[in-house]
Amino acid sequence: MDTRTPASGNSPWLPFESRRRARDEKREAVLRTAVQLFLEQGYHRATLNEVADRLNITKPALYNYFRSKEDILFECWVMGQERVEDQIAEIESANENGLATLRMLVRAYAATMASDFGASLVRFNVADLSEANQKTTLAGKRRIDRTFRNAIKQGITDGSIKPCDVKLTAFAILGALNWIGHWYKPGGELSPDQIADDFAIRLTADIASRPQRRRPPKKAVKPTGKK
Amino acid sequence: MDTRTPASGNSPWLPFESRRRARDEKREAVLRTAVQLFLEQGYHRATLNEVADRLNITKPALYNYFRSKEDILFECWVMGQERVEDQIAEIESANENGLATLRMLVRAYAATMASDFGASLVRFNVADLSEANQKTTLAGKRRIDRTFRNAIKQGITDGSIKPCDVKLTAFAILGALNWIGHWYKPGGELSPDQIADDFAIRLTADIASRPQRRRPPKKAVKPTGKK
Repeated sequence: MDTRTPASGNSPWLPFESRRRARDEKREAVLRTAVQLFLEQGYHRATLNEVADRLNITKPALYNYFRSKEDILFECWVMGQERVEDQIAEIESANENGLATLRMLVRAYAATMASDFGASLVRFNVADLSEANQKTTLAGKRRIDRTFRNAIKQGITDGSIKPCDVKLTAFAILGALNWIGHWYKPGGELSPDQIADDFAIRLTADIASRPQRRRPPKKAVKPTGKK
Repeated sequence: MDTRTPASGNSPWLPFESRRRARDEKREAVLRTAVQLFLEQGYHRATLNEVADRLNITKPALYNYFRSKEDILFECWVMGQERVEDQIAEIESANENGLATLRMLVRAYAATMASDFGASLVRFNVADLSEANQKTTLAGKRRIDRTFRNAIKQGITDGSIKPCDVKLTAFAILGALNWIGHWYKPGGELSPDQIADDFAIRLTADIASRPQRRRPPKKAVKPTGKK
């Protein structure tokens, strides 16, 4: 939000904005490398020395950007969570019906789960974080749960989703989604987008009011032509 | 399998079978306490001192039964995995059609996930195990994956399950099931059996050929009266 104009070209230092951007980029590069290493080797086995090695910097240089290994772990989680929360905000602002909202949520979250920062939401152990950070991650998890539940509730209200147990339905959907963070390997048969498209339909097919309206099937159900 | 008859009552030592049984019971008590503590606090935070404290024994006494903390972690996993494999063997010997087999698998696995040893299959980090034990757990995971996929394939062949992507279907189902190990808390609204019954239908409803046969719906679908 700081909009101060950068100093003119005579200074050997980069203008403030550029310096901030460069710092942010470096910080994110550390996180990208760290999250890969944590996912590969597990948080406890991975060392900051190896993170630094991969970045061609020294371990002390990491402390310009982060206070500790735990801080890095938490910030990896933050990267994933922020991505999900941005997606949620965008989807909610579209003001679609419950089913359409739920499908957009599934699609977006599935694609995120097939990314390193996304996987960090489910692959790391919350117990490795400080108490304050544990609280933050729990609150984030709850926001995601609530968002999925709200879409389902809305769908039941607006008729796009069949009456169902909202909590169990959300758990089943989020479980299938979170598991992507465990099994997805880049370069596999399916791209993140293909998985996301498939899951958006697959995980909501049973609760969608149409094309299969389960009750009351008083008369012949016309094929809709949709898959 | 050892059926030797115990020595008569004069010895101050328990008969061989009884001693073996007592040892097994103590060993399992250690695992039950350890798995609870690992789930509560995370494997790295939990200490063997606290395991011993909760059992009213000393930490060195634990080494009568286990070589190391890692050995205990692995044996917790073994307890869960053996339960699942016993269930698989029983279900497969029932020789039902693919859909019925899949539903039995879902039901059994869901109930197991809502137990401590079951949760240990998904809550701990494989990277914390020795390389040999990591291989064993990966092989176990693959056997479970294969069993679910085989049931789906069989169902497609025998017509009880609609043609679908077998791998993605198995991933979606197992994801929803594995997530139970994360969210289930004893004493909640639903018992493990209720969750298992619900999931057995919920996770297979969309791929079941009946009661909703999605294609070709040439004529009116009769309500079957089944839920």
